[in-house]
Amino acid sequence: MNEPIRDRLVSLRRSLHRHPEPAWREFYTTARIVEEIRAIGVDELAVGPDAYDPADRMAVPDGDLEPWVRRARDRGADDGLLERMTGGNTGAVAVLERGEGPAIGLRVDIDGLFIEESADETHDPVAEGFRSQIDGTMHACGHDVHMTWGLAVLEAIKESDFSGRLVVFFQPAEETSGGGCPMAKSDFAADLDYLLAVHVGLDHPTGEVVAGIEKPLAMCHVDATIEGTSAHAGKAPNEGDNAMHAMGTAIENAYGIPRHSDGMTRVNIGYAEAGSASNVIAERAHMEAEARGETTELMEYMKNRLKRTVRSAATMHGCRADVDVVSESPRADSDPELQALVSEVATDVPGIERVLPAADFGASEDATFLMDRVQQDGGLATYLIVGTDHPTSHHTPTFDVDEDSLEHGVDVLVESIRELEHRHPVPRAEAEDGAHAEVDG
Amino acid sequence: MNEPIRDRLVSLRRSLHRHPEPAWREFYTTARIVEEIRAIGVDELAVGPDAYDPADRMAVPDGDLEPWVRRARDRGADDGLLERMTGGNTGAVAVLERGEGPAIGLRVDIDGLFIEESADETHDPVAEGFRSQIDGTMHACGHDVHMTWGLAVLEAIKESDFSGRLVVFFQPAEETSGGGCPMAKSDFAADLDYLLAVHVGLDHPTGEVVAGIEKPLAMCHVDATIEGTSAHAGKAPNEGDNAMHAMGTAIENAYGIPRHSDGMTRVNIGYAEAGSASNVIAERAHMEAEARGETTELMEYMKNRLKRTVRSAATMHGCRADVDVVSESPRADSDPELQALVSEVATDVPGIERVLPAADFGASEDATFLMDRVQQDGGLATYLIVGTDHPTSHHTPTFDVDEDSLEHGVDVLVESIRELEHRHPVPRAEAEDGAHAEVDG
Amino acid sequence: MNEPIRDRLVSLRRSLHRHPEPAWREFYTTARIVEEIRAIGVDELAVGPDAYDPADRMAVPDGDLEPWVRRARDRGADDGLLERMTGGNTGAVAVLERGEGPAIGLRVDIDGLFIEESADETHDPVAEGFRSQIDGTMHACGHDVHMTWGLAVLEAIKESDFSGRLVVFFQPAEETSGGGCPMAKSDFAADLDYLLAVHVGLDHPTGEVVAGIEKPLAMCHVDATIEGTSAHAGKAPNEGDNAMHAMGTAIENAYGIPRHSDGMTRVNIGYAEAGSASNVIAERAHMEAEARGETTELMEYMKNRLKRTVRSAATMHGCRADVDVVSESPRADSDPELQALVSEVATDVPGIERVLPAADFGASEDATFLMDRVQQDGGLATYLIVGTDHPTSHHTPTFDVDEDSLEHGVDVLVESIRELEHRHPVPRAEAEDGAHAEVDG
Amino acid sequence: MNEPIRDRLVSLRRSLHRHPEPAWREFYTTARIVEEIRAIGVDELAVGPDAYDPADRMAVPDGDLEPWVRRARDRGADDGLLERMTGGNTGAVAVLERGEGPAIGLRVDIDGLFIEESADETHDPVAEGFRSQIDGTMHACGHDVHMTWGLAVLEAIKESDFSGRLVVFFQPAEETSGGGCPMAKSDFAADLDYLLAVHVGLDHPTGEVVAGIEKPLAMCHVDATIEGTSAHAGKAPNEGDNAMHAMGTAIENAYGIPRHSDGMTRVNIGYAEAGSASNVIAERAHMEAEARGETTELMEYMKNRLKRTVRSAATMHGCRADVDVVSESPRADSDPELQALVSEVATDVPGIERVLPAADFGASEDATFLMDRVQQDGGLATYLIVGTDHPTSHHTPTFDVDEDSLEHGVDVLVESIRELEHRHPVPRAEAEDGAHAEVDG
Repeated sequence: MNEPIRDRLVSLRRSLHRHPEPAWREFYTTARIVEEIRAIGVDELAVGPDAYDPADRMAVPDGDLEPWVRRARDRGADDGLLERMTGGNTGAVAVLERGEGPAIGLRVDIDGLFIEESADETHDPVAEGFRSQIDGTMHACGHDVHMTWGLAVLEAIKESDFSGRLVVFFQPAEETSGGGCPMAKSDFAADLDYLLAVHVGLDHPTGEVVAGIEKPLAMCHVDATIEGTSAHAGKAPNEGDNAMHAMGTAIENAYGIPRHSDGMTRVNIGYAEAGSASNVIAERAHMEAEARGETTELMEYMKNRLKRTVRSAATMHGCRADVDVVSESPRADSDPELQALVSEVATDVPGIERVLPAADFGASEDATFLMDRVQQDGGLATYLIVGTDHPTSHHTPTFDVDEDSLEHGVDVLVESIRELEHRHPVPRAEAEDGAHAEVDG
Repeated sequence: MNEPIRDRLVSLRRSLHRHPEPAWREFYTTARIVEEIRAIGVDELAVGPDAYDPADRMAVPDGDLEPWVRRARDRGADDGLLERMTGGNTGAVAVLERGEGPAIGLRVDIDGLFIEESADETHDPVAEGFRSQIDGTMHACGHDVHMTWGLAVLEAIKESDFSGRLVVFFQPAEETSGGGCPMAKSDFAADLDYLLAVHVGLDHPTGEVVAGIEKPLAMCHVDATIEGTSAHAGKAPNEGDNAMHAMGTAIENAYGIPRHSDGMTRVNIGYAEAGSASNVIAERAHMEAEARGETTELMEYMKNRLKRTVRSAATMHGCRADVDVVSESPRADSDPELQALVSEVATDVPGIERVLPAADFGASEDATFLMDRVQQDGGLATYLIVGTDHPTSHHTPTFDVDEDSLEHGVDVLVESIRELEHRHPVPRAEAEDGAHAEVDG
Repeated sequence: MNEPIRDRLVSLRRSLHRHPEPAWREFYTTARIVEEIRAIGVDELAVGPDAYDPADRMAVPDGDLEPWVRRARDRGADDGLLERMTGGNTGAVAVLERGEGPAIGLRVDIDGLFIEESADETHDPVAEGFRSQIDGTMHACGHDVHMTWGLAVLEAIKESDFSGRLVVFFQPAEETSGGGCPMAKSDFAADLDYLLAVHVGLDHPTGEVVAGIEKPLAMCHVDATIEGTSAHAGKAPNEGDNAMHAMGTAIENAYGIPRHSDGMTRVNIGYAEAGSASNVIAERAHMEAEARGETTELMEYMKNRLKRTVRSAATMHGCRADVDVVSESPRADSDPELQALVSEVATDVPGIERVLPAADFGASEDATFLMDRVQQDGGLATYLIVGTDHPTSHHTPTFDVDEDSLEHGVDVLVESIRELEHRHPVPRAEAEDGAHAEVDG
Repeated sequence: MNEPIRDRLVSLRRSLHRHPEPAWREFYTTARIVEEIRAIGVDELAVGPDAYDPADRMAVPDGDLEPWVRRARDRGADDGLLERMTGGNTGAVAVLERGEGPAIGLRVDIDGLFIEESADETHDPVAEGFRSQIDGTMHACGHDVHMTWGLAVLEAIKESDFSGRLVVFFQPAEETSGGGCPMAKSDFAADLDYLLAVHVGLDHPTGEVVAGIEKPLAMCHVDATIEGTSAHAGKAPNEGDNAMHAMGTAIENAYGIPRHSDGMTRVNIGYAEAGSASNVIAERAHMEAEARGETTELMEYMKNRLKRTVRSAATMHGCRADVDVVSESPRADSDPELQALVSEVATDVPGIERVLPAADFGASEDATFLMDRVQQDGGLATYLIVGTDHPTSHHTPTFDVDEDSLEHGVDVLVESIRELEHRHPVPRAEAEDGAHAEVDG
């Protein structure tokens, strides 16, 4: 890729990095993406409720959307687009229809995180002037890179002689596992022959590609509210039913849910708030939690234990608990045929020095909804990683990427799409003989 | 008191009830009080920094004051007054100078609480149309009544032939124990012969008066922040230092600080917030707590244990804790000479059916700063209660008062002030013979 | 009292100190007491099941009594006596019937504690050679002194010209609140005109006497068992229902039961055991706890919260809880007429330098069963304290007494009994006018 | 194997099952094994301190050994043998020297668990009359079967024309990871060409064999003692430093040590005891815990966090903690060459219907010490599993085995030993090309 193209990728990524928006509030981000897609020119472009059924959305936030809409408008987002996204129906799908050939999906995600980006001068986005301009919100997981890839791939395929159908999903609300389900249920996800999902980094350095991850953890998001009775903390603490104390008990015990013999599990209370003032026994507590598992069953185990923990903690302190599962995503695995194809392709991409056919993935992803849909419809799916040197872990205030990986990602994706076009239909591998499964049994 | 006066008291109290403002944010409230004082006409009126040294303030909030100033302005608060209160220097002191006679202080408090007032139709302020107009804030401790008393007493004494000096303290930030100290250190508190502090209700019914409370608990407010390290909750929970978990441990153990053989103690974590999102190991937790004790020593015991608890919880989870004591108030007792005088006076007030010379007070009050100052300067102080039928406890969303008690309070206070004028100097009682103290020893 | 008598008291006390036995296992102790009583010569002597109905006993231990019986036999306890105490029916009642006059009860307790006595050379019982000879058991609350007093008073009254009836209760199982109830229900407790109960020390120095304590806390003993499911801690921790974890949660939360506005409360988990081996998820946990309150209602509040806490903790971890109240004792107060009489008498006793008519008592006592019985039957009761310089607190491994207080106790009790004889019937005081009660209300 | 041999195996296993003895207290068990070995006749027999250096022992119990010695003597254990085991130096090693050929080790373990065996009639050992005769102790992990195998293999090889050296380790204290280390350091473990370690069951059914387990968890045993200050729970709970409360906090938080991204971890507090009586603030608490990890590093991570947790909990409650690591065992993996050989052999054993070349092992084993020693000395080692239908999990009161597996184990082991003799030296496989390692990296 020549220098001007690299510059454009960097510029686009930085521009998106400046405006992180959280799940279902990607108003400016969607508007910006749509603007780019329109410049590229596609055969079909669906925004928000045209891209999916809003009723299928998960983990829709309760709060006021207006400040986010206003901010997007202030930054120049098109009013018509904002109108179409009313109610937080963000995200978009772009389609290229180019004659005979395979139907290929590419999925990228677009939401940011509620993390305050580092203001340290040694943090590149500060030094280079593209730090988040929205207080308390940050692209700390590389979705700015993912969107850039989605747009650049769309443009490259548009300009190529590709024959077939390319559907690019710009999915909102990955961080809350809320956007994968509606995208997977939409007509755009129907009858795809192949699906490529992609992530940057994940502890793989610049120049490394993983052709397909295995075992993305199944996960769920859980909102828990504990309702007690307030009282004067000095005059009559005994008259209260202390939601704060119940919350403390729930937090303590949630982390202690037993590890499971069948595999990896996770649990986290990531956000909690309780009470009103120091001299009032807390009437209410709210927690936002998640549970994960190496299999869907393990995630269910964690989820059920988490529910029991919160409910018993409430009962212990005379309170009532309301525990809602706001979203869930299944486990899915990459297909070995696609892993092999991507491995082969990636080996020849300039700058790629090492290709791993597969790797474990110690996290969750609601791309699994789309992978599952495609696999159920008879297609093949893989979730690939394009490495980048990132100074600190994902989801930390100093996360950043090596911008060399911008071109790597575009090249690996474009070449994979072209190769799929040429080899279509990719033959299925023989079923395994089960020896390995037996051993695990 | 005739009907029109009762109507004016009710109207004033309801008007103040509609606009509750929390500690050091009583912009509209102060402006409204000042407007009333100006209508009455006094010899000296000091607002905010003229009433006390802002540097003596305790528990000053970090947050943005601007929305509160704006709201006060929108409701008609005088711009000049708002200017004088810049930085949250709210509250006022009014002085009547009327020739020879005793110097008498009256202290009332003016702040509301972060409690969402009930919207139930059976809640009188809803039925009668004076429910709080500020979401999440409420006069749930009767300070609206206290201010009404302060203004009505000022007016009544002004119109009387009282001879002496009356100083009425409209003190901000009682709920956070932040306003008593600066008021007590001000020149207005110097050389008072007598101090009357007053509270409505406290589980005493309409028609009952307590001439002086004993043992207001010593108390302190404590802010604790726990700083850890964020990490991806699915990918690498072990890389985090979990401030959420540390907070849970701190909450659990704070409530378990041992009861003390020397007397009553209290502890509460009244507000807590931690973390950012469900998939991030929490980097930071914040708690607002308080500790109380029947003596200042007992409060110190609770405070020190609370500090140790939070710090050890942080250490346990690899985090750092910062524990700040944002305010403290000492214990103080009413003087028996004033209790006797108020008892006598109250017995003759219409509507007062029962007078208790003394009662225990299971709560804290930073009026103790003023009481302590006056007692140290050689004066006498009492903290009296004017009963009211309140449907639910103080600091609950359905707290309310019986408006009959409005007149009771004015009468008891005015008559007590006049009686102090006549009996001045009130003779000191003989020191007790110590028998009782021995028994307790 | 002359020197030989002092020596005999010291010698008796030390002898009893060497052989502490826990509740309902006072085999040697009872045998030793009976031997002394026989030497004195009384009109009636009842041991174990002759002194009370064994079915009325509370907090009877589950464990094996045999080692205690064997140890008592090895030390020379009479076989016939041991036979009568079969099943742990320890304790005795001695009666002197001496013609016309009042019926006066004296209650002393005889059990030791499961505390390992200090082996430090500076600890007097070590230096003087009368340290506990039973590992892990100790007279750490002064019951050795109480028994000595009971015997010495019996002897002194026997040798005097006392006219009336004296009943001395040597009560087992005070520490577990298990022995007061059966003694109170026995015929020996019927129709007593006066009851004296007595304790040494309690933070009052040598030379001080408290004529009657007020507010012994109501209390209950609670045994809790949590049953879960064991599992291999490495292979499948998820298959267990962890009684250890449930116990940890119960302990943490029990101490945090809210303090109560109505008065003093206490809670303690004093003994706990769970699990079997480090590599097994614990199947079972056992806790021995207590709850106390300034009133019987407050004790009930603590007891009910404790039950809820343990049960919810079990539910949280998939376990079942069984919570048994093994004993309870009510609150009782000393009668002021007896307090006055004892005060007067004590003032004249040699060595007594200060007499407090009354004092608070921050602990519990099942003497309240006997006091309550006597008061219900129309008699008067008081619980008096004879001070002693004790180097460390009761219930600690270095607790000890100043042996000067041995004579003080005998003198105060004997003189009080003689004075009761002379003044009988002691006139009732007028009922209080309630003013104080109102204030407290 | 013919019927009489089966009967002898069953009889021997049941006899051993009746007399379970815990770690380093296998007095009767060792005596019984030695008796059998002598009957077989071997070339060398070492008991206790002759088999290993007692100073290398780990997790040696503090308690009184005498009751266990007495019980063994009562059941007929040889006095001379008991003498040699003084101090708890149990276990034995038997050696057959039969000319040229490989040196092959076989390791079996001999200790029972502190679990009370089910008394349910449906539990086979009850129905068949071989339930544990020692209250509270049970062979709940199948070590009775292991010993039976060790003896039967010794006999079969003795009677065969085997040429080489066979060393059978009857290792004590596997459950506490205390016996593997001294056995591994002994001269008997030197210069072995091959080591077979074996376990029954582990969720594999009768007829199934696993030729070599992978990833036995590294583990450590940790003893923690918390020392506080006792106090009277009613009179002055504040004067105590509550070891019970500290223990509760430690338990709660230990289970919540974060899961690790690098692999499986485990933690358990398996035994805990604290305090003395319900009315005493606990002075002391004792916990027996363990930590495990998929790698030695992960075990270290868990161990260090556990230490920090216990220490911080003690600090929080004013106590001191003493945390001792009483034993540790490393991770070890089976060698693929041995896995292949055992797989091949097992396939031909009558009754074996399925052979898994490898399986994960979700537990720990101190056989890893011996495996590690042999591998370091240049030999090959495998840890194989002989399946059995077990009604409930290992380490539960109703654990039992299908006695058909007794012959399976003997056959698999004997045939493997003979095959090793014939193929010796077993050629080394080529080193893997690292592709897999890269993927995991």
